[in-house]
Amino acid sequence: MHTDLRSDTVTKPSQEMKAFMMDAPVGDDVFQEDPTVNELEKFAADYFGMEAALYCSSGTQTNQIAINVHCRPGDEVICSKDAHIYFYEGGGIAKNSGSSVLLLPGDRGRITAAAVLGGIKDPNNPHYPLTSLVSLEDTMNRGGGAIYDFNEIKAIRKVCLENKLPLHLDGARLFNALVENNIPPKEYAAQFDSISICLSKGLGAPVGSVLLGNKDFIHRARRARKVLGGGMRQAGIIAAGGLYAMKNNIERLKEDHHNAKLLETALNELNWVEEVLPVQTNIVVARLADHIDVAELIAKCAEKDLHFMAFGEQTIRMVTHLDIDSNNIDHTISVLKEL
Amino acid sequence: MHTDLRSDTVTKPSQEMKAFMMDAPVGDDVFQEDPTVNELEKFAADYFGMEAALYCSSGTQTNQIAINVHCRPGDEVICSKDAHIYFYEGGGIAKNSGSSVLLLPGDRGRITAAAVLGGIKDPNNPHYPLTSLVSLEDTMNRGGGAIYDFNEIKAIRKVCLENKLPLHLDGARLFNALVENNIPPKEYAAQFDSISICLSKGLGAPVGSVLLGNKDFIHRARRARKVLGGGMRQAGIIAAGGLYAMKNNIERLKEDHHNAKLLETALNELNWVEEVLPVQTNIVVARLADHIDVAELIAKCAEKDLHFMAFGEQTIRMVTHLDIDSNNIDHTISVLKEL
Amino acid sequence: MHTDLRSDTVTKPSQEMKAFMMDAPVGDDVFQEDPTVNELEKFAADYFGMEAALYCSSGTQTNQIAINVHCRPGDEVICSKDAHIYFYEGGGIAKNSGSSVLLLPGDRGRITAAAVLGGIKDPNNPHYPLTSLVSLEDTMNRGGGAIYDFNEIKAIRKVCLENKLPLHLDGARLFNALVENNIPPKEYAAQFDSISICLSKGLGAPVGSVLLGNKDFIHRARRARKVLGGGMRQAGIIAAGGLYAMKNNIERLKEDHHNAKLLETALNELNWVEEVLPVQTNIVVARLADHIDVAELIAKCAEKDLHFMAFGEQTIRMVTHLDIDSNNIDHTISVLKEL
Amino acid sequence: MHTDLRSDTVTKPSQEMKAFMMDAPVGDDVFQEDPTVNELEKFAADYFGMEAALYCSSGTQTNQIAINVHCRPGDEVICSKDAHIYFYEGGGIAKNSGSSVLLLPGDRGRITAAAVLGGIKDPNNPHYPLTSLVSLEDTMNRGGGAIYDFNEIKAIRKVCLENKLPLHLDGARLFNALVENNIPPKEYAAQFDSISICLSKGLGAPVGSVLLGNKDFIHRARRARKVLGGGMRQAGIIAAGGLYAMKNNIERLKEDHHNAKLLETALNELNWVEEVLPVQTNIVVARLADHIDVAELIAKCAEKDLHFMAFGEQTIRMVTHLDIDSNNIDHTISVLKEL
Repeated sequence: MHTDLRSDTVTKPSQEMKAFMMDAPVGDDVFQEDPTVNELEKFAADYFGMEAALYCSSGTQTNQIAINVHCRPGDEVICSKDAHIYFYEGGGIAKNSGSSVLLLPGDRGRITAAAVLGGIKDPNNPHYPLTSLVSLEDTMNRGGGAIYDFNEIKAIRKVCLENKLPLHLDGARLFNALVENNIPPKEYAAQFDSISICLSKGLGAPVGSVLLGNKDFIHRARRARKVLGGGMRQAGIIAAGGLYAMKNNIERLKEDHHNAKLLETALNELNWVEEVLPVQTNIVVARLADHIDVAELIAKCAEKDLHFMAFGEQTIRMVTHLDIDSNNIDHTISVLKEL
Repeated sequence: MHTDLRSDTVTKPSQEMKAFMMDAPVGDDVFQEDPTVNELEKFAADYFGMEAALYCSSGTQTNQIAINVHCRPGDEVICSKDAHIYFYEGGGIAKNSGSSVLLLPGDRGRITAAAVLGGIKDPNNPHYPLTSLVSLEDTMNRGGGAIYDFNEIKAIRKVCLENKLPLHLDGARLFNALVENNIPPKEYAAQFDSISICLSKGLGAPVGSVLLGNKDFIHRARRARKVLGGGMRQAGIIAAGGLYAMKNNIERLKEDHHNAKLLETALNELNWVEEVLPVQTNIVVARLADHIDVAELIAKCAEKDLHFMAFGEQTIRMVTHLDIDSNNIDHTISVLKEL
Repeated sequence: MHTDLRSDTVTKPSQEMKAFMMDAPVGDDVFQEDPTVNELEKFAADYFGMEAALYCSSGTQTNQIAINVHCRPGDEVICSKDAHIYFYEGGGIAKNSGSSVLLLPGDRGRITAAAVLGGIKDPNNPHYPLTSLVSLEDTMNRGGGAIYDFNEIKAIRKVCLENKLPLHLDGARLFNALVENNIPPKEYAAQFDSISICLSKGLGAPVGSVLLGNKDFIHRARRARKVLGGGMRQAGIIAAGGLYAMKNNIERLKEDHHNAKLLETALNELNWVEEVLPVQTNIVVARLADHIDVAELIAKCAEKDLHFMAFGEQTIRMVTHLDIDSNNIDHTISVLKEL
Repeated sequence: MHTDLRSDTVTKPSQEMKAFMMDAPVGDDVFQEDPTVNELEKFAADYFGMEAALYCSSGTQTNQIAINVHCRPGDEVICSKDAHIYFYEGGGIAKNSGSSVLLLPGDRGRITAAAVLGGIKDPNNPHYPLTSLVSLEDTMNRGGGAIYDFNEIKAIRKVCLENKLPLHLDGARLFNALVENNIPPKEYAAQFDSISICLSKGLGAPVGSVLLGNKDFIHRARRARKVLGGGMRQAGIIAAGGLYAMKNNIERLKEDHHNAKLLETALNELNWVEEVLPVQTNIVVARLADHIDVAELIAKCAEKDLHFMAFGEQTIRMVTHLDIDSNNIDHTISVLKEL
């Protein structure tokens, strides 16, 4: 039984989603004439109570565009040392935006208002880059899907407002957080100047992310997207998958979280597992005993068609998603127990 | 009758193409596991006899990635002053690659080997940027779809080889050139180190371009694409449209050229048209008499559902494509005559 | 007799200037505690009626900083195709600031208000970079020391104000212009948002340029200078040379212009000289007959210790300066006549 | 008694140094014709057994140029989280070179071979920037002037060689290290591909640093310097100060170290001082008791003409140098005791 827990990005579009995609009207989105792209952008903006939205080809692109609009070369972004924008986007903060990073530590990658405040540089000291953006990630991928405390987010927002700093959210897995903490999307989004959401992770669309912000921000983001080559023509075909996903696949993320909990329980019972980060959403991160050869373990499981990834030293990551059902979970647990 | 001659980018996927897209197997292309993307990349590479290929979301992206791999900040790109890479890509040569431009004049935007040679800067003089890339565009969009003389390309290639300069081709409309000049694709491609081809223009696919080069180049291009946020997940759905287009829609470009010729003839008969650039492919560029208000003309035609674009001072551009048939041409001509 | 007409940058500090330099009080300018740097900056700002000034190590640095403060990546600078900022600063507009260039033609490199106006791009079209700066150069080096018509400058200023574009001046040889056209420095400077003046060309100081602008601009320029590594410690020693030069060497530029006129007259009498650009200041540019081998000519003169430079095809440039007196001019003319 | 311990950058040139500067022959260094600059570059290269050298206006500039030549955008520099290149150069790694940073912890800012090895990214994973440079700083400023163990440097060099990574040294205070550990300069320099040394810190010259490397590296560095506006004209005047400093002021650094030791002893005796980092060279870093208001302390001392700097939370830094003699030390100790 094929069980791919490497990432929630591996989902394949369902027949219903595909049918929706094929029926969607399209146009040339570079001329802003693709009705489906326009509908998705409006739907996403309304969902979060933001003024405007921009459909992009990936979450890396939406994040990088946001940074590019907020910052100029010589500026500095404050984020977690585990942030996706720093760790997994090819050095894009520096390459695309010439911006420096202040990397904060934090419990499971979640930074605090106090640390943000302490990290703001004196703008009159030319030895320092100019602090220009604070970026959060919720849920926190490298923190094992950890959810931010909303009160901490509000405290960070306060620091940002007092220091005239925009606040960006990498919401690649934002829906996973919102179905758990039950914060209304608009109330949550009101804390941020820009938000990137992914349609191709938990939501199961094949391609795409959406960047949210006010009209002027999105106007500038559209310009930035063009220079990255992110302007697409009849993008409605894939945007439709995202629209379908937003309309049908949000609430069901709870199933993924339930499945992740089952994996957590099973892993905790294995004597070769040292520690499992308490599961909060759909990501399970486990540290293995020192005598385990992680690469060998992964290879052995792959032979039984069970796939997951190494995730730093002596650590593995499993991610549940739309294409993982209870049978896959049973299969996973039985393979792990047999090892 | 809706007749959109603004660009060959406005085509909508046919039912056959859509059906092919829906049936295409997909996977996570960031893990290089999308079978359809892999097939398209192999098909395109083989078609042109190049080692490797990379599917991207737009022709701007393929061009910008190529420049980014060939050049580093402080380098200089030699190209036509009318080149798409300079004129229509949002200043990306400078923004994405920190590279300067040497802009050459040329007949309908086609630069010459002599001018390229004269433009190479002394690498020992630190006052100058370092010449690092020559880029051609064939057909030449701002030259009204003009085709390069293959002998001139070979002469430019010789200059490049002698000066250890890579040669890039913006082949957004390369297929339009090749169906006219009958140069075998592999013979043509052998002149270049990297080629960008578009699937969403004459070929009629909804989204995407392909970058061609040797293995090392494409390896580096894949890295560059990631940082731009150009890595897509189940991209096979849209790559399938490109694959279908390459397999079915190349030869038929001759119809577009025939239609463009008909427009040329009709325009030449109008007394308010000063000059029509001799049509070579699917682009018709006409300079209008001084008394014509171009914006007003375009508005009037739009009322009759005939659409085309202003293209510099007192000039209009019409582009024929997959969604323009002889009825559209008749409609166009009759509207223009009635004005 | 050693006669070096290659550039007005080759002058050596006089004994008086050196004595002044040695006596100047110094401090750590990174802490803004160098009294001589502070005095020079104040002197230069007051001279031109600008709010603030910044001492830098070269005219390239002052220009590049100005562009960097005015522009961000993806922006576009409008300037002459012959502008020093584009032609002789190592591709810095792109490398340092990620900015594109719109290169205008013009009589002896002087661009016009009409051309500037025509070159401003539509900010709502993401295909284009964002026009963000207009830059002039007065006198125009590659135009053979040509002086701008002040009325044209005022017309360009008007276009800039109407389009909310800052106007920068590369005033590497601004003093040469001002002693000729007799525009009061403050009246002239009022047309610009930022001005770069050089102390090491006609004025004869060994090192340095000054950037002028309002307080906020100079605050940001100071930050930009730091990142370029342009912050110097006890810079007062060399700043003193610039201060001495501004106080003593401006009016005498007329002698250089007189000497250049003498060279112009002499060159015009030589039958192997095709054309001499009418001399307006201290630069003499002459196009030679086709049968002349320029490199050979330069070598022959160098044997007689007369030095000047090739300046494009079949063209030579001679520049008069502080270390060239009437004996040098006589020597030059006699060597040229003997050839 | 004026006692400025804020930095060793505040020294003023002595009469002897000034006289040497005034007598030095000069020329136009942009044409590489300044004899004194050429002599300094040759002297420094020979001193360290490197092929070539380049005189620059600051240590920030030499460091930034080195990074710029070694790296391209999308690359990553491995360095200490306390490195001057990351912390005090205005975000230049990102701004000037588009490069990312991997920031390693380490005892007093000194990173280890093991940590460097662990930090090298998989070049085949496009999620990561490309590790392209390792940079050390010796002595380590933010580590309170700590000296690297030469064996650790050799171990890091081995890791670099095995991974084809260049190794750069920020040697702003390299001479302070070398007079203490007695490593022959050439043996030490042989571990590095590029070295930046400062003439304006312990050595007491008013302006400048020297970048060392092989001929090709320096050729490229010269190009990079030009674009930063770092090319100076008759720079020999200030280069002479550096030449004098290298010839006269290296051995005497031991006096500064002795003076720093005296300060360390005195500080350790104060009950309001929590901890003094063991003094190895000329930097004294002390953490103060929680009840001390650092800003107030600094202000009080300044009233008695004793100056030093805050250096992070509850911490102060004092730096000894050429203009600090035993009287200054006595003055400092008596002021501190009286508080």
